[in-house]
Amino acid sequence: VQRGFDAATAVEPAGEGRYTGRIDSGWDIAGNANGGYLLALGARAMADTVGRPPLSVTAHYLAPGRVGLCEISVEVLRGGRRMATVAARLSSNGDDVLALLGTFADQVPGGPTVVDAAPPELPAFERCVRSVPPAEGSGFGDRVHVRVRPDDAGYRDARPTGRAEIRGWFTFDAAPDDAPPADQQIDVFGLLQAVDAFAPVCFNLDGVPVGWAPTLELTVHVRGIPSPGPLRCRFHNRFVQDGLFEEDGEVWDSSGKLVAQSRQLALIPRG
Amino acid sequence: VQRGFDAATAVEPAGEGRYTGRIDSGWDIAGNANGGYLLALGARAMADTVGRPPLSVTAHYLAPGRVGLCEISVEVLRGGRRMATVAARLSSNGDDVLALLGTFADQVPGGPTVVDAAPPELPAFERCVRSVPPAEGSGFGDRVHVRVRPDDAGYRDARPTGRAEIRGWFTFDAAPDDAPPADQQIDVFGLLQAVDAFAPVCFNLDGVPVGWAPTLELTVHVRGIPSPGPLRCRFHNRFVQDGLFEEDGEVWDSSGKLVAQSRQLALIPRG
Repeated sequence: VQRGFDAATAVEPAGEGRYTGRIDSGWDIAGNANGGYLLALGARAMADTVGRPPLSVTAHYLAPGRVGLCEISVEVLRGGRRMATVAARLSSNGDDVLALLGTFADQVPGGPTVVDAAPPELPAFERCVRSVPPAEGSGFGDRVHVRVRPDDAGYRDARPTGRAEIRGWFTFDAAPDDAPPADQQIDVFGLLQAVDAFAPVCFNLDGVPVGWAPTLELTVHVRGIPSPGPLRCRFHNRFVQDGLFEEDGEVWDSSGKLVAQSRQLALIPRG
Repeated sequence: VQRGFDAATAVEPAGEGRYTGRIDSGWDIAGNANGGYLLALGARAMADTVGRPPLSVTAHYLAPGRVGLCEISVEVLRGGRRMATVAARLSSNGDDVLALLGTFADQVPGGPTVVDAAPPELPAFERCVRSVPPAEGSGFGDRVHVRVRPDDAGYRDARPTGRAEIRGWFTFDAAPDDAPPADQQIDVFGLLQAVDAFAPVCFNLDGVPVGWAPTLELTVHVRGIPSPGPLRCRFHNRFVQDGLFEEDGEVWDSSGKLVAQSRQLALIPRG
């Protein structure tokens, strides 16, 4: 179950092509709603419209999302037999917060499969560390349960590792100090949250300030339906250029299958 | 110069939020216009509307693009000081062909730069091979000049290399058998073409049929303005799953700077 997340991303139809929802409290970092959370909120309205889950969805972030009611307007651009393509906009307090474009389709097993990668090796959940120290944790750190490999967590203590890589566990609804339930089912909307729940990887680079790194664009490809249990995640970056950086994410399920792939383009604000 | 490409992707304003253009002949593979070409055509209208070049642009492909007049409708979602976010749709003969969403902004030098990668090593342009054998080349193979590392070209002769990687040169307007002009200036729209001009990388995998591999979604991040000269490109894949595969691209300029990064999700049609 991912009950808290499901409730916080619930949407209600409100007439032709319109949904209402709520940017809930506790899913923010310092008052700005998390980008993966907002993506999931928008994608739920899009998926409901076409009766299919996201396969590939892109969000461009227009303005910070603040706690409060929101409205999602959805337009179906193509309603094919297998694939539906949908555009949407999420607005709140009269401001457009994010613009979305996605293709929605069920996963269809079969066809060629060739994988040249393996999930990240992680110590047990309990031996990994919280993404931010508990004292500094916002509510967001209590909503999603992220545990980072200790040797990737240097950014927490102003000791950047020098490697733009962060690997760790993701789950919902764990007790703060316990291992997560092995039978927890995370769905495809949970994957949209997982890809934006860790600290920006370039915080582990020397010369990159640890602070706010707003996402300009985030694309997620759903590559499978997760088997129950916590997710293994890996994020990395190779190019910080002129204050912009990409962050590539992989999310693997407990069976060892890649279930989501993400890339975002984010900004290191200039002083 | 990239004169042929500029002419083939030219768009004309046609009233509030509307542009006309032409899906030109010769930019297709077996009658379907190339995805990078269509992306560039749409992005030109978006860029013209906001007076800024693409920074990150995503296209979802709705229907094959056939030669003929096309119309692009553009909507500005945010017109900020630095960043403008724009949605667009390209239609032809009454069918929507692709849906686009992008953030447009000038490149702004400065800010942190940390790069952990190098351009692909390539033999001289003349020692690399055409992406498809000349006899099988469509007009597209004469419009863009793609030369592949010989050891990545196994797919051409039904001898897949077993590695889902293709590296090579990209330029426009070279004489068929000559090295390209070293002073050729490729612009950011040319980059949108470059990321979709090579053969699908998974054609180099055993068990993946060489045929049509339609792109569902393509995202390009422009990471710099190219210095003059041909571009060095690398494409690779790690996950073919259930007949869907991602293809990641890097495009480097003659100065050794990454100028574009791309990812697409594409489909291996089932027999």
